[in-house]
Amino acid sequence: MTTIQDIADKLGISKSTVSKALNDAPDISETLQKQVLETAVELGYTKLRRYKKPVRKLCVIVQRDNIEYEEPHHFAYDIVMGFRQAAVPAGFEVAVVPVDAALQRDISYDVFMLQHDFAGAFLLGFSLGEPWMKDLKTSHTPTALYDNHIIGNPMTSYVGIDNEEGMYLAIGHLKSLGHKKIGYISSALGSHIMQVRHRAFFQAMRSHGMKTDPSFAGCSYYLSECMEKHLPRFLDMGMTAVICCQDTFASAAITQCQQLGCRVPDDLSIIGFDDIPLSAYTSPPLTTVRQNRIQLGKSGFNTLNGLMNGVSTGTILLHAELVVRSSTARCPVPVPVQYDS
Amino acid sequence: MTTIQDIADKLGISKSTVSKALNDAPDISETLQKQVLETAVELGYTKLRRYKKPVRKLCVIVQRDNIEYEEPHHFAYDIVMGFRQAAVPAGFEVAVVPVDAALQRDISYDVFMLQHDFAGAFLLGFSLGEPWMKDLKTSHTPTALYDNHIIGNPMTSYVGIDNEEGMYLAIGHLKSLGHKKIGYISSALGSHIMQVRHRAFFQAMRSHGMKTDPSFAGCSYYLSECMEKHLPRFLDMGMTAVICCQDTFASAAITQCQQLGCRVPDDLSIIGFDDIPLSAYTSPPLTTVRQNRIQLGKSGFNTLNGLMNGVSTGTILLHAELVVRSSTARCPVPVPVQYDS
Repeated sequence: MTTIQDIADKLGISKSTVSKALNDAPDISETLQKQVLETAVELGYTKLRRYKKPVRKLCVIVQRDNIEYEEPHHFAYDIVMGFRQAAVPAGFEVAVVPVDAALQRDISYDVFMLQHDFAGAFLLGFSLGEPWMKDLKTSHTPTALYDNHIIGNPMTSYVGIDNEEGMYLAIGHLKSLGHKKIGYISSALGSHIMQVRHRAFFQAMRSHGMKTDPSFAGCSYYLSECMEKHLPRFLDMGMTAVICCQDTFASAAITQCQQLGCRVPDDLSIIGFDDIPLSAYTSPPLTTVRQNRIQLGKSGFNTLNGLMNGVSTGTILLHAELVVRSSTARCPVPVPVQYDS
Repeated sequence: MTTIQDIADKLGISKSTVSKALNDAPDISETLQKQVLETAVELGYTKLRRYKKPVRKLCVIVQRDNIEYEEPHHFAYDIVMGFRQAAVPAGFEVAVVPVDAALQRDISYDVFMLQHDFAGAFLLGFSLGEPWMKDLKTSHTPTALYDNHIIGNPMTSYVGIDNEEGMYLAIGHLKSLGHKKIGYISSALGSHIMQVRHRAFFQAMRSHGMKTDPSFAGCSYYLSECMEKHLPRFLDMGMTAVICCQDTFASAAITQCQQLGCRVPDDLSIIGFDDIPLSAYTSPPLTTVRQNRIQLGKSGFNTLNGLMNGVSTGTILLHAELVVRSSTARCPVPVPVQYDS
């Protein structure tokens, strides 16, 4: 186990200087403090193992550009609340820390965690290309990630819902309504979860014995492109149902259909993913795959607590639940063409 | 919620007769008892919800034809122990119930559980084609399954290790030793876990940027066929490393190599899966992907306890760990052909 002496030896400075730097003393220069913290991290030093009384500070780190959490109608609000509901009674302080890519480039993940005395974190909204996602491959800090899977680092856990199951339930529902041609609309595949859902769509179609080929999915970075390019293409292909990667896309698809003169659900059934609070209030209300966000937050704490106590859970997926509202209906029967007599 | 009255009404018998049948009274005929139990299950009646003081009997159900658990060197021994270690302090009685396919054909899963007063179960060693696997798709009994995944039933959980990660670590290890041509030997793909590992092999090869095609895997029902057909084929193909689906296969492969005059690890590196107790004592000792079986047992109880209390966890995967012993070594350098001068 790395000690303060090890850090002092490596840098050729005194133990007390190291200690001061680690404890944010005012008489240590910023440059020296950065050097001490980075060396500490390099040697695998963590505060978690330092005190007999463990550090009781945890944080929920939110990538503020990708996910909102401040208001009750924001997607991540209940996730943060669930985390607090489990962590606070267990004796932890919980800080919510919004970060962006610039901050991540500025300071490495472990140094950030050490500097702020956090014993562990729950990360929300990180896409694959962000700086800290690379740091997490070798991080020593216990970290649970919502909807991200770091392979090969036993100090990390992936928490989410079973999207494979969600897709299986969604397609099963459409199949039971007589639909045969089902499309999938997605944002770009730059996040773990978009890749998972995209794969799950094709897998669930196969599991239900339904025909599919790559043209059945339309993925674009811009929502507008999904609506203006893929949705009309799907209608031209004779699709009678569309599953969207997120409720926001499904909600936009309902609006776009109105503009295209296509009735939801009479002409086209639409299913979303997430069950955000808005989804009960679209017109028609959205059939969607629910994520129980309070439970996700609690599971985030439970698995993080496990990691801090030597229980090496890599993945926890909650059951998905299909919420059937009014955006899905029986597959329309083709109207016979009327010929003039 | 279904009551005893509902069962009585459906069968046109008295409440007290139903109650007697459910409580195994001696003056009720076997035929009538069976009818009551089956009707109870059909109506979704479970004893779990009956008493204010919940039933505290759980069971570990072992498919005795597929998995051994009685002796400390048996694979499932530690899984059962881990389950007990977590369940008993939480106030549960734990019975271990060996079953075979005949018993499963004889009585449906929920009827069996109701008849024996078990509030929940942890299932070990079930292959995909067994009768109870079909029952579990719609079962009302809280059930955790080791290495089996029931999609779409919120009363079931899948507990295992992250095999994708295990395969990623195994292939990463071989890659770091310079291996480029790696084969995969597997038993038939009749169980969920064999399908998962087979898929994980190809996925991990791709993740590591290594070439592969379907001929790189050899899957046969009989161990002997794997050894006599696929292993020589792999050697002919110029493979320098082989990953086996289980340690027993890896151990057999080491023996087969001796007979073929192929040295392990000098000519061929071999990696197993599971880290069964035997694996430290093969010659050479086996590099393998460890499953922490005590933790698997504990996780089995934890997720089952969650299901019984409304926490709907669908999947828990523990981190895989690569144990490097002596059956893997640097990729052999091809010996230059000696020409006569």
